[in-house]
Amino acid sequence: MTPLKIFSDVHLSPSALQLLQEGVAPHQVIFPARPPASVLAKSEFDPAFLEADIAFGQPDLSSIAQSEKLRWVHLTSAGYTRYDTAEFRASAAARGLLVTNSSSVFAVPCAEHVFTFMLAQSRRLPLSLRSRFGSGDPEWYLLRNASTSLRGQNVLILGYGAIATKLIEMLRPFDAQIVALRRRARGDEAVPIATYEGLPEALANADHIVNILPANADSEGFISAERLASMKRGAVLYNIGRGTTVDQDALLAALRSGQLAAAWLDVTEPEPLPADHPLLAEPNCFITPHVAGGHADETETIVRHFLANFRRFVAETPLVDRIF
Amino acid sequence: MTPLKIFSDVHLSPSALQLLQEGVAPHQVIFPARPPASVLAKSEFDPAFLEADIAFGQPDLSSIAQSEKLRWVHLTSAGYTRYDTAEFRASAAARGLLVTNSSSVFAVPCAEHVFTFMLAQSRRLPLSLRSRFGSGDPEWYLLRNASTSLRGQNVLILGYGAIATKLIEMLRPFDAQIVALRRRARGDEAVPIATYEGLPEALANADHIVNILPANADSEGFISAERLASMKRGAVLYNIGRGTTVDQDALLAALRSGQLAAAWLDVTEPEPLPADHPLLAEPNCFITPHVAGGHADETETIVRHFLANFRRFVAETPLVDRIF
Repeated sequence: MTPLKIFSDVHLSPSALQLLQEGVAPHQVIFPARPPASVLAKSEFDPAFLEADIAFGQPDLSSIAQSEKLRWVHLTSAGYTRYDTAEFRASAAARGLLVTNSSSVFAVPCAEHVFTFMLAQSRRLPLSLRSRFGSGDPEWYLLRNASTSLRGQNVLILGYGAIATKLIEMLRPFDAQIVALRRRARGDEAVPIATYEGLPEALANADHIVNILPANADSEGFISAERLASMKRGAVLYNIGRGTTVDQDALLAALRSGQLAAAWLDVTEPEPLPADHPLLAEPNCFITPHVAGGHADETETIVRHFLANFRRFVAETPLVDRIF
Repeated sequence: MTPLKIFSDVHLSPSALQLLQEGVAPHQVIFPARPPASVLAKSEFDPAFLEADIAFGQPDLSSIAQSEKLRWVHLTSAGYTRYDTAEFRASAAARGLLVTNSSSVFAVPCAEHVFTFMLAQSRRLPLSLRSRFGSGDPEWYLLRNASTSLRGQNVLILGYGAIATKLIEMLRPFDAQIVALRRRARGDEAVPIATYEGLPEALANADHIVNILPANADSEGFISAERLASMKRGAVLYNIGRGTTVDQDALLAALRSGQLAAAWLDVTEPEPLPADHPLLAEPNCFITPHVAGGHADETETIVRHFLANFRRFVAETPLVDRIF
């Protein structure tokens, strides 16, 4: 078998690079002339790409279009916005190009991150960590009484996939009432499914709305002024999907009016927000800088996940986390 | 039956007070001349106390000793430090005085609070909420890589009771390796028990040490310099028990040396800490102001819990949360 060439534009530590090279041997890793800026940054065109059988990273669409050899693209992210077009899907299908992502790598940390948001909101952690009230102080009673439980709360999860599945497991001991939004119920879900038809009712019932929607044409501005207005007054919105799915002006207005009690965002549009963005100054808006999927040895787990799929590719067995 | 007199020194909202009075009727609630300062504040002697059959609140020991009528003390707290003496236990036993606490009321919020601490530590929430790094920034990679998971972590719980039981349920989906310290294993525990003999090994193995110990003569300074030194380097300590169980100078030294990666404290000695206390300035020490047991309608749940026990008392059936 002629050695396969794997074009990697992934920003890797030396140990992760070694893991990759040893893991694919005797197949060969090839690299762009200019090193990549980040895991999510789009690569520029590089002549070496045209020699590759496999692309591991975030290859740009025009490079993929120009390549005649490429048979498989493995993305280092869970999100795949720039690939999620009818045109690319059709072209991948026509030429038999496999496309997989790293969804399995990020599902657990993402689910734990948003679950942490939910508990931190319930226990009023940001406020509580700043407070120095003494027992008996009237403000101390207010803080204690505002520190609530997730028990029995109504949770709506927008987007049913690997992250939602993990989050549902974590919420089980809390006896939360969980509903998830999915385009079509498939019958394999762990919780009741609301389709778009049932969404207004689900939004009106939820105490906590967890947005895991990917960015695509359908989800752009999904959390609109209208949908924010249809939520229960005092609900809390969490976003670990993509920033573009939220109308941020409408979100700001909903926070200021008290329609939403709080918002917890790991993603915004743009990232990071400019320093003078009003959401950064909003006291009930809590923002982390797109770290929900982060975990120790992250690039190594991304490489290991790729290598496991690479072994399947070589053995001609079905790949995991296939998106197209 | 002669109406019973219930002496209440509990700081109650008007609705909670009404709930109490209606709940015990036709029995009678009597009050101290001076209203109580807080849930945990010790009452002063009040002549009305001597008429009471039941004390609901935080009655002082000398009032209890002077009373000839008193048959039952129901404490509004889960902790009962000031009552936990050999002398009081013996005197209660000798005169047939029942003593119960509000442990059931606080177990769920306390467990959720410390679980929130554990997740917030794992996801580096305080740092992450302050960070505005962009994707690809070297500090962004550091933050992402420092944001870990509770999965498979070793957890040692000091004190096995209602809070530990709830915490263990919440940790189940994380496949954590949990050990709990209990004076004597009773065989009904949900996790392996370490007794004092096995404590050094348990301390050395734990990534997370959750201190739920009550304050008493045995637990004073329990988290000593020696025990801190025997912990795994980089472990995290949580305290939702009582502040006196920790040698705070030794804790500060352990945080400064990196022996502990972080400490999350809901209780300190004293409370609140003076504004210039060095633990308040320590970057990896996170302190909430004794709010772990807090929850919405807290005084009402305390009253409801008392009323449920009151009905048992009147019916002469065993009381719940009996401590002596």
